[in-house]
Amino acid sequence: MQRSRRWFLRASALWSSALVACRGKGEAPAAEPRALGAAVSPYGSRSRFEKAARFFNQNTKVPLEEASSRTPLHDTYGIITPSSLHFERHHSGVPEIDPATHTLTIHGLVDRPLEFTIDELKRLPSVSRIHFLECSGNSGSEWRGGSADSDVQRIHGLTSCSEWTGVPLALLLRECGLRPEATWILAEGADASKHARSIPIRKCLADAIIAYGQNGEPLRPEQGYPIRLFLPGWEGNSNVKWLRRLEAMDQPAMTREETSKYTDLMADGTARQFTFDMEPKSLITRPSGGDTLGGAGVYELTGIAWSGRGAITRVEITVDGGATWQAAELMTPVLPIAHTRFRWSWKWDGRDALIASRCADDTGYTQPPLPELIKVRGMNSQYHNNGIQAWKVASDGKITNGNRG
Amino acid sequence: MQRSRRWFLRASALWSSALVACRGKGEAPAAEPRALGAAVSPYGSRSRFEKAARFFNQNTKVPLEEASSRTPLHDTYGIITPSSLHFERHHSGVPEIDPATHTLTIHGLVDRPLEFTIDELKRLPSVSRIHFLECSGNSGSEWRGGSADSDVQRIHGLTSCSEWTGVPLALLLRECGLRPEATWILAEGADASKHARSIPIRKCLADAIIAYGQNGEPLRPEQGYPIRLFLPGWEGNSNVKWLRRLEAMDQPAMTREETSKYTDLMADGTARQFTFDMEPKSLITRPSGGDTLGGAGVYELTGIAWSGRGAITRVEITVDGGATWQAAELMTPVLPIAHTRFRWSWKWDGRDALIASRCADDTGYTQPPLPELIKVRGMNSQYHNNGIQAWKVASDGKITNGNRG
Repeated sequence: MQRSRRWFLRASALWSSALVACRGKGEAPAAEPRALGAAVSPYGSRSRFEKAARFFNQNTKVPLEEASSRTPLHDTYGIITPSSLHFERHHSGVPEIDPATHTLTIHGLVDRPLEFTIDELKRLPSVSRIHFLECSGNSGSEWRGGSADSDVQRIHGLTSCSEWTGVPLALLLRECGLRPEATWILAEGADASKHARSIPIRKCLADAIIAYGQNGEPLRPEQGYPIRLFLPGWEGNSNVKWLRRLEAMDQPAMTREETSKYTDLMADGTARQFTFDMEPKSLITRPSGGDTLGGAGVYELTGIAWSGRGAITRVEITVDGGATWQAAELMTPVLPIAHTRFRWSWKWDGRDALIASRCADDTGYTQPPLPELIKVRGMNSQYHNNGIQAWKVASDGKITNGNRG
Repeated sequence: MQRSRRWFLRASALWSSALVACRGKGEAPAAEPRALGAAVSPYGSRSRFEKAARFFNQNTKVPLEEASSRTPLHDTYGIITPSSLHFERHHSGVPEIDPATHTLTIHGLVDRPLEFTIDELKRLPSVSRIHFLECSGNSGSEWRGGSADSDVQRIHGLTSCSEWTGVPLALLLRECGLRPEATWILAEGADASKHARSIPIRKCLADAIIAYGQNGEPLRPEQGYPIRLFLPGWEGNSNVKWLRRLEAMDQPAMTREETSKYTDLMADGTARQFTFDMEPKSLITRPSGGDTLGGAGVYELTGIAWSGRGAITRVEITVDGGATWQAAELMTPVLPIAHTRFRWSWKWDGRDALIASRCADDTGYTQPPLPELIKVRGMNSQYHNNGIQAWKVASDGKITNGNRG
């Protein structure tokens, strides 16, 4: 009946974490009286003991209809984000749309303008793909020095990963007879803000999806129910939700969301526009800011890496503030433009440490340290921060945001 | 403003289904007044317009605590089954278990019996894998002639596919010092029925997982919260839910669930025992029994295929009752021991047809016609029916169960 902790420390392989303090028992646990449980049910829900939630600032002056909520990355597993915990970003709240009356119109520079009902879209050939979706404002707090007591959810929780199902946009555009002079498509949502973005035709024909499914069931309302534009690897706001029309044009529409917003103001005062790609990023999600380690010993590190341009090929870990790096293990499946789970075992000596991950993708790009990013991009923008995230581990085990070293 | 249906039939490629009757429009749809929508929220739920539900027979004499519920395969997309719609099979209902007090004990033929809390298990190295789970009783109705008006959910809805996360069992057994004479492990659940199965040690060391995660969040209560045994590719009932103990033994325990139940009674009166593998199976899920086609034309067929022994390598479609077969398209990702989505376009001539799919896996096994299976196995058993499912399409478009031709 002795506690197994000492044995663990003495005899175990590297991965037998000192966090684990299991009790030894020689016999089966006593069988308590057991009552009949609950019946089968039509549509399940999670255990009442589970409390993981999207984070949003409830004391903000921004109305909660025009706000964002963030995925609890610290508490999610694997690569699929539960739909109930997928991050949100709304410009005028979540409209309630009846799928029986909602339609998608494709018009503008096409030979045959068409209007599709949701049922019609669902009867066409479809694709299902596991892809991350990330807001370009994710990690934005770190450009000008994040808060020391912030955590992985509050800093980076504007990324999630789902299986998306829908009709290839290329198929619909072929039906409509896209004209050669059509070089952009304006996508507009049915929300009150009429959220709208111009998308280059190249992307529309390559891998864009008119998505109606998310993780095996219809899109969740906050993800654009009944349909959204899905552009694999491109910044979240271009994946227009509650999609109602696509207009083929010979130039971008220069909407509010691609002029005053969602552009990247550089150090010299000029702005980068149409910066759609989400570049490679990685995070150690556990342990991370807010955790406390229980003393020197072996710890399992895990996290996610992703790239809007392809598949993750490498994740490396440093525990000495970037002086040395060692390869983490990538967990299968490693899918292009999807969260990729990694793990690594750390034998902590109990002294101050700065831990971080960095990733590379199959284009050869390696995730940069934040100072290098700032050198190129300045600090005027909130968007497209894919710099390395460091966590500071103090000798008392407390972990804080280490981006300001 | 003309309807595009005639154009679709005349000018479109094969996939432009005659089901689609889109209206042409020359201009943007009128912009209706739009109210501010709903605010961000901590944990989302599906649209009130969506009604897909697990099916269970509410007029049965079997108590609903000792029943099963079935995934609406007709209405799910891609390969991930929404956790709320994962099939259920309970032997004494869903216990409500507090994860703060629940533990897993490993004892019997081990040098160091150990007891793990849920928190301790979560701190160990973990794996996440996308795998189907299927009840061995799935499709059982078809052995002795299914009902003509049954559908894909009622016949085959005891299969679902999730991303499962947990600790490799091999790791825990190594910690406990498994003795050489341990050849089986008895796994017992904390439900009132003490559901228990004996598992060969080979499987425990190969790829068994003590799973605490499902589709990125904790296991759902009806899937074994807070932990279950997960045995990739093996019949559902061996994946013991609400797992409380594992006892290493030198022979199987011969529990009720591996003697009187979950054995396969053969034609000669002997019973096959420990038939764990779920063999390759495939289904056309849309269109399928209960659907009505709208007249001759092009239809998109889609469905799922899976094998407990490896990856699906081929799915073929027949529309003439098995006289000829043509290759369906496998949608990526094609993962081992996971649902694999396939699609195929069918140009229906409007006459009576018998449509079906069959699959093969990377062991070289091809899914058999039901009569061939019956020749070998007889019709005494309800379990392990992986015969080909046929759907009968009548000239009026009505689709019914075609297994009795």
